[in-house]
Amino acid sequence: MRSSRKNRFVYHFFDIPSHTMHLEDIFKHIKPLDESARAAARVRQDSLIKPIGSLGKLEELSIRLAGIMGDFSASFEKKAIVIMCADNGVYDEGVSLAPQVVTLMQSTHFQTGITGVGVLSKLSHSDLVVVDIGINSDTKSGRFLDRKIRKGTHNLANQPAMSREEALRAIDIGFNEVRKLHETGYSVVGTGEMGLGNTTTSSLVLMALTGCSVEETTGKGAGLTEEAFEHKKAVVRKAFELHQPSADDPIGVLEKVGGFDIAGLVGVYLGAAYFRMPVVIDGVISAAAALLAFHLCGKTRNFMIPSHCSEEPGYAVAMKTLGMEPYFNLGMRLGEGSGCPLTFLLIDAAQMIINDMATFDQVAMDNSKMVDIRK
Amino acid sequence: MRSSRKNRFVYHFFDIPSHTMHLEDIFKHIKPLDESARAAARVRQDSLIKPIGSLGKLEELSIRLAGIMGDFSASFEKKAIVIMCADNGVYDEGVSLAPQVVTLMQSTHFQTGITGVGVLSKLSHSDLVVVDIGINSDTKSGRFLDRKIRKGTHNLANQPAMSREEALRAIDIGFNEVRKLHETGYSVVGTGEMGLGNTTTSSLVLMALTGCSVEETTGKGAGLTEEAFEHKKAVVRKAFELHQPSADDPIGVLEKVGGFDIAGLVGVYLGAAYFRMPVVIDGVISAAAALLAFHLCGKTRNFMIPSHCSEEPGYAVAMKTLGMEPYFNLGMRLGEGSGCPLTFLLIDAAQMIINDMATFDQVAMDNSKMVDIRK
Repeated sequence: MRSSRKNRFVYHFFDIPSHTMHLEDIFKHIKPLDESARAAARVRQDSLIKPIGSLGKLEELSIRLAGIMGDFSASFEKKAIVIMCADNGVYDEGVSLAPQVVTLMQSTHFQTGITGVGVLSKLSHSDLVVVDIGINSDTKSGRFLDRKIRKGTHNLANQPAMSREEALRAIDIGFNEVRKLHETGYSVVGTGEMGLGNTTTSSLVLMALTGCSVEETTGKGAGLTEEAFEHKKAVVRKAFELHQPSADDPIGVLEKVGGFDIAGLVGVYLGAAYFRMPVVIDGVISAAAALLAFHLCGKTRNFMIPSHCSEEPGYAVAMKTLGMEPYFNLGMRLGEGSGCPLTFLLIDAAQMIINDMATFDQVAMDNSKMVDIRK
Repeated sequence: MRSSRKNRFVYHFFDIPSHTMHLEDIFKHIKPLDESARAAARVRQDSLIKPIGSLGKLEELSIRLAGIMGDFSASFEKKAIVIMCADNGVYDEGVSLAPQVVTLMQSTHFQTGITGVGVLSKLSHSDLVVVDIGINSDTKSGRFLDRKIRKGTHNLANQPAMSREEALRAIDIGFNEVRKLHETGYSVVGTGEMGLGNTTTSSLVLMALTGCSVEETTGKGAGLTEEAFEHKKAVVRKAFELHQPSADDPIGVLEKVGGFDIAGLVGVYLGAAYFRMPVVIDGVISAAAALLAFHLCGKTRNFMIPSHCSEEPGYAVAMKTLGMEPYFNLGMRLGEGSGCPLTFLLIDAAQMIINDMATFDQVAMDNSKMVDIRK
């Protein structure tokens, strides 16, 4: 883990007139958790009519949420998942067997509620913000926001995926989507993505940030034959050797081997920490972006909430480095942000527990008798 | 695993005029899963706009539910958790540090919605059926059903916890509560319990059914000092030696070392299988009852849905024997049925996925192109 290097980076102003935030200014503005709110939440949890700690991670979650919001009574009624959609030039190497148009097609489906994340979002009453940050198409649609940087990254098998300026711009796009959510009353955000080839880019980002091997970080994505899987790993290995991306320069990692979706999600994590909103990590791509945000600014970790244990091997690598354990063991590997609505429900559960359960005092039990079961 | 011995038991008629079911008649009536409904659900899952299998256990869950209900489009709007409340004579051995009156007090709190399971039930819109099947008190309350067999079991440290007739009667009570739920339109049921000393009885039941040791099946329950925990294990060890309960006679296991709550839950599992309702397993006590029901009738397993991984060590033993993996990793050990409302939400999620996601045909994608991502 390289958290000791956090906050050592100084980047220039974004090179775009409308964007005014320095990355360093964002990092400085991100504050730690509110320790007094956390302490009050702990006291409250320990006063509820249950053995101390018996609701496990739901208790811990409510305490963390208190630390983020400054109060354990915060409610999270407006929930949104930001889905970053982009194509990747490395698709040309044959790392995915599906036609590239799937990125565009699925991106147009999200808002109609018929995809995995769309259906699950209804269950948790969450909204979707679908962002075209680099789909390889000229199609415009009322179903996604046009924030296209370019029609997909360059092929990282031969050259850097993007320029440094593009990486920063993608981060800024993600940051600003969270800003808008914050300004319109949303208080929790989830991370989703769509883009063929993005388990390949995630694998490379994770290798750069953790020092893990191709085998430890690379999976079959949406589904590959054994032969295609071996080919994918060879592409990853070769690209890593070509670019030598280093955790010392996280923006350089995005530049060399990232994707616009991953960079956009880095911005979402920074935005969530900046505006003090819990942000849910979905699968391996989302987790790679989380780890990159953590390398940029260690304090972002406090705002990240894990969800489900993805089947993609890189996910476990990212979680281990972040020191997190997922709540769900569902064998999922869909992406799209599909783990977020389920985790929003756990956030609701945690908040109902800390706010709606009775205390021992309230039920007028004899505390001198009851104290024992709270040990 | 001793599943080969399932269904070898013949018990007499219940010795109570109002009860008319033979256990053997119940076992015979329990049918396997509907394989054609399962196959149709599998076909449906594989036609949805996602890579095949990418929603993992949520897909498997929808397929199992189809096998139970005979149709993947079944909805589970009316949900209930049956909470069996009873005291255990072994409490007198000092296996719990809380005052025994806690069983009664918590049992009166469930319907007011202020306990852990009460709060979480609101999230999943589930109802509670609270059953006094043996609380050590003369108190009557509009908040729980009076099905009291006796004011707690005998102290199993010295004598059998209950008579064979009482064990069968408790099973019958659980069975009939599910019958009533079925008759009033409920389609999914959860299992909960309340009763000081019931991690001790569960430990003994699990030892008898699995051959595992005291250490493998015994935990600190609601919370014990190290000294009290050592004492609890000594009580369990001695009682096991005294009674030598055997998996060859599951009803005898209940008789010797069970509790009215566990026996009542065995009836709930039998009832759920009989009336073809999915039934959610909560923590270690609920899991011990599930394993006992499985030993009585192996077909009951098809109707059982796991929930969260309890912190109590016996839970993992029971799950391993049942060949199940829990969905949630929340470090919970509250009991009460508190894992059921969360799992009801997963059931809703699974049903929304299989019913509300679009198929490739529906989105009029070119199937000749799209087939690849379904591999």
